[in-house]
Amino acid sequence: MIIETIKSPADVKRLSLEEMKALAAEMRTLLVRKVSCHGGHCGPNLGMVEATIAMHYVFQSPEDKIVFDVSHQSYPHKMLTGRAEAFLDAGHYDDVSGYSEPSESGHDHFVIGHTSTSVSLAGGLAKGRDLAGAKGNVIAVIGDGSLSGGEALEGLDWAAELGTNFIIVVNDNQMSIAENHGGLYRNLEELRRSNGTCSNNLFRAMGLDYVYVDKGNDLEALIDAFRRVKDTDHPTVVHINTLKGKGYAPAEADKERWHWSAPFDAETGELLSPVTAETYDELTATHLLAQMKADRTVCAITAGTPGIWNWTPERRKEAGGQFVDVGIAEEHAVALASGIAKAGGKAVFGVCSTFLQRAYDQLSQDLCINDSPATILVLRGSLTTMTDVTHLCHFDIPLLSNIPNLVYLAPTNREEYLAMLDWSLGYKAHPVAIRVPAGPTVPATRPVQTDYSDLDRYEVVERGKDVALFALGSFFSLGERVCRLLEAQGIRATLVNPRYISGIDTRLLDSLTTDHRLAVTLEDGVLDGGFGEKIARHYGPSEVKTLCYGAKKQFVDRFLPKEFLAANRLVDTLITEDILGMLNR
Amino acid sequence: MIIETIKSPADVKRLSLEEMKALAAEMRTLLVRKVSCHGGHCGPNLGMVEATIAMHYVFQSPEDKIVFDVSHQSYPHKMLTGRAEAFLDAGHYDDVSGYSEPSESGHDHFVIGHTSTSVSLAGGLAKGRDLAGAKGNVIAVIGDGSLSGGEALEGLDWAAELGTNFIIVVNDNQMSIAENHGGLYRNLEELRRSNGTCSNNLFRAMGLDYVYVDKGNDLEALIDAFRRVKDTDHPTVVHINTLKGKGYAPAEADKERWHWSAPFDAETGELLSPVTAETYDELTATHLLAQMKADRTVCAITAGTPGIWNWTPERRKEAGGQFVDVGIAEEHAVALASGIAKAGGKAVFGVCSTFLQRAYDQLSQDLCINDSPATILVLRGSLTTMTDVTHLCHFDIPLLSNIPNLVYLAPTNREEYLAMLDWSLGYKAHPVAIRVPAGPTVPATRPVQTDYSDLDRYEVVERGKDVALFALGSFFSLGERVCRLLEAQGIRATLVNPRYISGIDTRLLDSLTTDHRLAVTLEDGVLDGGFGEKIARHYGPSEVKTLCYGAKKQFVDRFLPKEFLAANRLVDTLITEDILGMLNR
Repeated sequence: MIIETIKSPADVKRLSLEEMKALAAEMRTLLVRKVSCHGGHCGPNLGMVEATIAMHYVFQSPEDKIVFDVSHQSYPHKMLTGRAEAFLDAGHYDDVSGYSEPSESGHDHFVIGHTSTSVSLAGGLAKGRDLAGAKGNVIAVIGDGSLSGGEALEGLDWAAELGTNFIIVVNDNQMSIAENHGGLYRNLEELRRSNGTCSNNLFRAMGLDYVYVDKGNDLEALIDAFRRVKDTDHPTVVHINTLKGKGYAPAEADKERWHWSAPFDAETGELLSPVTAETYDELTATHLLAQMKADRTVCAITAGTPGIWNWTPERRKEAGGQFVDVGIAEEHAVALASGIAKAGGKAVFGVCSTFLQRAYDQLSQDLCINDSPATILVLRGSLTTMTDVTHLCHFDIPLLSNIPNLVYLAPTNREEYLAMLDWSLGYKAHPVAIRVPAGPTVPATRPVQTDYSDLDRYEVVERGKDVALFALGSFFSLGERVCRLLEAQGIRATLVNPRYISGIDTRLLDSLTTDHRLAVTLEDGVLDGGFGEKIARHYGPSEVKTLCYGAKKQFVDRFLPKEFLAANRLVDTLITEDILGMLNR
Repeated sequence: MIIETIKSPADVKRLSLEEMKALAAEMRTLLVRKVSCHGGHCGPNLGMVEATIAMHYVFQSPEDKIVFDVSHQSYPHKMLTGRAEAFLDAGHYDDVSGYSEPSESGHDHFVIGHTSTSVSLAGGLAKGRDLAGAKGNVIAVIGDGSLSGGEALEGLDWAAELGTNFIIVVNDNQMSIAENHGGLYRNLEELRRSNGTCSNNLFRAMGLDYVYVDKGNDLEALIDAFRRVKDTDHPTVVHINTLKGKGYAPAEADKERWHWSAPFDAETGELLSPVTAETYDELTATHLLAQMKADRTVCAITAGTPGIWNWTPERRKEAGGQFVDVGIAEEHAVALASGIAKAGGKAVFGVCSTFLQRAYDQLSQDLCINDSPATILVLRGSLTTMTDVTHLCHFDIPLLSNIPNLVYLAPTNREEYLAMLDWSLGYKAHPVAIRVPAGPTVPATRPVQTDYSDLDRYEVVERGKDVALFALGSFFSLGERVCRLLEAQGIRATLVNPRYISGIDTRLLDSLTTDHRLAVTLEDGVLDGGFGEKIARHYGPSEVKTLCYGAKKQFVDRFLPKEFLAANRLVDTLITEDILGMLNR
């Protein structure tokens, strides 16, 4: 295979056009094969094969620097920059990450996983080049829905002022993860229809030069366009019209399904291990859809990721105007929810923990200062749901729980979650965030409260003495297991379901001081700035000692959940051992 | 005066055009008079007098809802909505805030103080109206530099999809706080020059309808335009060309100086109490400018607020390409700094604590995951620098100190600050943030370290026993005062300058357990998620008790610093009293 001869971009430059076309076909085969066994981003990579070959044919990476937005379309780039082995040999599939990674190769310049960052990051490389009086092309690749993110638009606006070499490749595959949303995509459509010639042009309006490539999967057209802009002396957009999923029929036919996939049968496209149990995502979508039918003011909001909480195209259609996909625009989504709530609507913004990070100021200013009673569903918040460093869901507790006015709740089971969600829809005093557990639903084994208006009242599930366990949300079951292990040692501990992440039940905490010597906190997130530290501060002046469990503050990448938990002593036996040690001191 | 007869917008509707013109003149006189005595936003309000009168003449507030971006241009709106007294009578100047405030009037819909939020918030009102099947116009007012902020651009992009009534008034006064930056402002200029007719139009490219008003300070033209768009059935931009500072000669002549002003002599424009002592802002600008001359790769970045750290137009000119104003675009600024650092440049982004909130995800993803060695200067971070609820600088410690890889430093005096700043420029291992003290510089009274690479090593300034004070950054002097008060009671405390906000000196902390019973933390910020809680967690399992001082988690508005500090027991005598109580237990 040609791909086996490609050790670096220099080897691409030696190929004939026909060889490059054959190379593209090989790369697609490898892409589909790897993703089918391993899982990963499918459609975005299939659409970018030719553009990536053409970029490496024309530009001189790594002296010329290519920065991929989200970098979930960088697999072809990895294949051409010394990392083909990780796609050729199943034994080496895990040698590379699913995103750009400087530690793997000098052809990668940043670790990137969130959207809408490439123009700004690459812009910094260009500015740094100019400050140093250096040379070389800087190329930002963006698209696949990322353009609507605030950071990308800020970057495009700024780029016009750079006044030196800067190339922005807009990969227009006509999709976000789901369909595109936002007015700017109408302009892209108009540009495609007019072959880039229509008078109104978003990029030109932003002050940028503009080149259009209608055949964005045609090597000759791409090479020609990149040659035209290479060594340009001013910021220029190259708008390429590509086909997401190109070359794999199922992915061409259903672009949303094939944006990312768990392992599948490459012949049929069927998932190898389809989810059958009821998940919290499925529960949320079905429950909210029913609520919407009963109440026309209930409105679900997503920022370009309807699929992660099971808002299928069919459900979106059924919900009509009550389901709003704002595109990748988390800042807008939070402010929109605040506005809807102020107008009397019941807004529910569902968002992955890691992506909610993009809207801290909007949570603080637009939502919480205004005390707008909207609901934020924080999806995947946990140490073990996402294991890529750019997608860690470890930080939402410090992020949200330190903002005044926000009620942040941690349900421990299915019924408690639904009760909290329903309560939040009717609650008018404050905004409410709920840390939705991940994975299959867990049924309640004790009665569930329906009203959470008496804020910061923890639930004492078992009343013992000496040691009290504050087992938050998804770690409640860990607390239960520790209780059973302590019981086996003759210790009857107090087990608390805190329910509220954002506040301390001082009355309960103070009452426990009479017959408790140790408070143990368990949280499924980073320790720093989190829940346990608030308990430690409260008990700081008292005789009650504290032990906080959660993760050490660090960025970790592609870890094994079990090993990671053990490294942080988040294991029932280890915690029990520590508690026994403390009690026997 | 006519203004005295205006109790609500209904009274505006009864006026003739001539009367409205006279009213505008009265309003300007009152604006300048109040701001000259009281301080406040000057230029933005002077430019919006006619547009505000015209909006209230044409629309039916509060059924029609007007949302002001930043809301620092809402003084004329306040005058016409039952709050004229707060501008007529010096005794009532403090009856109203400097921003929109629903608790003052039903004509205000949100508490707003950060930029770029009005389109999204008003968009939510419009969507909520539609969900409820209600009627009425929704009007977002935006401008004065806010358009370049990511949230505003996300909002504009989304607005096109609303498909129902939504009016976006773009107040184009050709300025941000300083001059405008970003390519989109070139498009606004082209639109002004072509009387709104040029083919390339940012707003149309975003999918919005568009109306241009060249005479944005002409009542007839404005009334005519607003009448045309009133009850529109689709999202429409009304682009009005206004004069910032109109009617007050000094403000027309120097728009940057007169964006906001401390009290001044209305005749001459001279400040009543000009700053004469050296401030940390002045020190920063002069020091960085000198560094820039010595090293062409040093690059200072601002996001539309050069003035708050004394980057005067003269200094900006002197710095040339080494000073970058990205416009109001904090997300881009952080990513840009990361890119510059990766390219070998020495990027320094200076930003007010409250505005840095807009870039949490960029700090985490673009900067810290990539470990890019840029410097972030966090300006004004303190409980007492800013007292408007939307501008609180209380939250930067929880925001920054819980992000892995970031080294967050708290200097306690002038020389320590400069040493940290200089060290950060050469440091290559991690990004560094520095919490720059506010106000006049405080000279060092002890030798200052020049190298901070041995992370998380606290400085023991006085070694005593029993009680240790960890007095962070701007609260170091509070710690010194408490030490003196304790000394008077025969207690020699240990006084620690932690220097590092983002990490714990476990070696020191553990060593203190031998002869200390109490650790007291003092931080000039909110307690929740902050510095003290980390100390409390560390000492949680030990015999050392902890007392954490800082502010309770809450949004406070227009408070008196002294009273606020006292309410949080942030007073040397109260802290001493608490310590003595603990030691004598």
